[in-house]
Amino acid sequence: MAKELWYTEKGVFSPGFQLNFKIKESLHKEQTPYQLIEVIDTYTFGKMLLLDGLVMLTELDECAYHEMLVHPAMVTHPDPQNILVIGGGDGGTIREILKYPIKKVTLVDIDKRVIEVSQEYFPELSKGGFLDPRVEVVNADGTQYVKEQNEKFDIIFIDSTDPTGPGAVLVESDFLKDGAANLVEDGIWVAQSESPFFAPEFLKTYTNNLKKLFKIVKVYLTEVPSYGGVWAFTFASNKIDPLAPKRTAPFHRILRTGLKYYNPETHQACFTLPEYLRTLIT
Amino acid sequence: MAKELWYTEKGVFSPGFQLNFKIKESLHKEQTPYQLIEVIDTYTFGKMLLLDGLVMLTELDECAYHEMLVHPAMVTHPDPQNILVIGGGDGGTIREILKYPIKKVTLVDIDKRVIEVSQEYFPELSKGGFLDPRVEVVNADGTQYVKEQNEKFDIIFIDSTDPTGPGAVLVESDFLKDGAANLVEDGIWVAQSESPFFAPEFLKTYTNNLKKLFKIVKVYLTEVPSYGGVWAFTFASNKIDPLAPKRTAPFHRILRTGLKYYNPETHQACFTLPEYLRTLIT
Repeated sequence: MAKELWYTEKGVFSPGFQLNFKIKESLHKEQTPYQLIEVIDTYTFGKMLLLDGLVMLTELDECAYHEMLVHPAMVTHPDPQNILVIGGGDGGTIREILKYPIKKVTLVDIDKRVIEVSQEYFPELSKGGFLDPRVEVVNADGTQYVKEQNEKFDIIFIDSTDPTGPGAVLVESDFLKDGAANLVEDGIWVAQSESPFFAPEFLKTYTNNLKKLFKIVKVYLTEVPSYGGVWAFTFASNKIDPLAPKRTAPFHRILRTGLKYYNPETHQACFTLPEYLRTLIT
Repeated sequence: MAKELWYTEKGVFSPGFQLNFKIKESLHKEQTPYQLIEVIDTYTFGKMLLLDGLVMLTELDECAYHEMLVHPAMVTHPDPQNILVIGGGDGGTIREILKYPIKKVTLVDIDKRVIEVSQEYFPELSKGGFLDPRVEVVNADGTQYVKEQNEKFDIIFIDSTDPTGPGAVLVESDFLKDGAANLVEDGIWVAQSESPFFAPEFLKTYTNNLKKLFKIVKVYLTEVPSYGGVWAFTFASNKIDPLAPKRTAPFHRILRTGLKYYNPETHQACFTLPEYLRTLIT
């Protein structure tokens, strides 16, 4: 009997819990100046992108991450035109953003090899986006970028790796402060914010730091099984409440068909937190 | 360096995906006429009950399962007095039911050793409940029980194992039909219904079978990381809609404090399905 191959992911925040993925084959492995990039083909989740051994996305459930990172803010903002993405080299986030009639999206990823490898192995995420003339790619350190550039953005999406390795600086107060200064007055900050179940203290600290910079700070949830289940995002703004009734009109911007996870009812429900999280955050 | 011990759970519906739990120690292992019962102490999830190698509960996240199995129906029914639980030998479900001023709860579990082992290792779940004079325990096959007994129940909770081994018969049409006949006219049927992500076809079949017996059939969700993340329940009734506005009054029956997962906002939100499930079920 042929030996089964499995990949075991050792999560950053759950030393006593791991996920095992049965492997068809290893497709790519490369050490860049920033991180180890791997692509493996798995039985249950399809192709999977790993950075420094951590699951970044799988074909099967990346929709639940990318749709939920992007649509709540895009649908809530009255007229999003100029968007910034920090991280997101796999292209899934800009794929969702480009479903709206925006003027420009700037993607800042420190590692251009993530973009190139994604274009080769994940064309459904990255092919259309990086060819779109509205997309500008900047290969730079996100912390430096927000400190030095002068544009103002309607929405900033933090599509970072886990807060370890090159992604660690993207959760620090300095980055949040510099980043928030890049927003227009009614701008929105959305960040992937780890597993609220395995990393509740991280979420608490991150939301507390956002509350020093923004009047409205909310946590919302999605479900990414290849990340271990429930996953948190933070939504922050000085002007815009994602649940304000008058903000529901722009839902027509997104057709129901074509999305796999997000829908108008999910928009309302995803901001509802189970009791252990409600009491943690408030 | 001491060797690390890990328990790997091979899920019924996800042959290419497994969960690894780091073990402190194995506390109990016993083969009964029905199944293999194990209790292990884990680093991340605390003590864990396994039946035939499948995770039944962990101390850390059993609240998200038991509270969500029980409270949506208990809060929705106008006057729940006589309750039936099929399975549930660990005691977590009756612990939640007994928070209401009911007259009687009957628990039917085929394997009395599950109840005894749970009382020894999981007293927080089982100690109070099995001593309560309102609780009657029947050690019987659930399919036989619903066929032969003559009482009518306000709510029936199916707190079964996965549909394999002794639990397999509890998802079959015959059991659903016989069980539904045990309900009063405005009764409610609630069943744990597996992972909607890993077992969507199971959920579709089960809800379709319920629709042959009940006018109102809804799916709702919770999050149990030790089960692999999102988890489904089905709610079925001929009279009672869990989201009807007039049904919100009984929320006062449950105090906000004391529950770790369920709250009134969660009651509304948990019935909202992401697009891939909404289209699967409707």
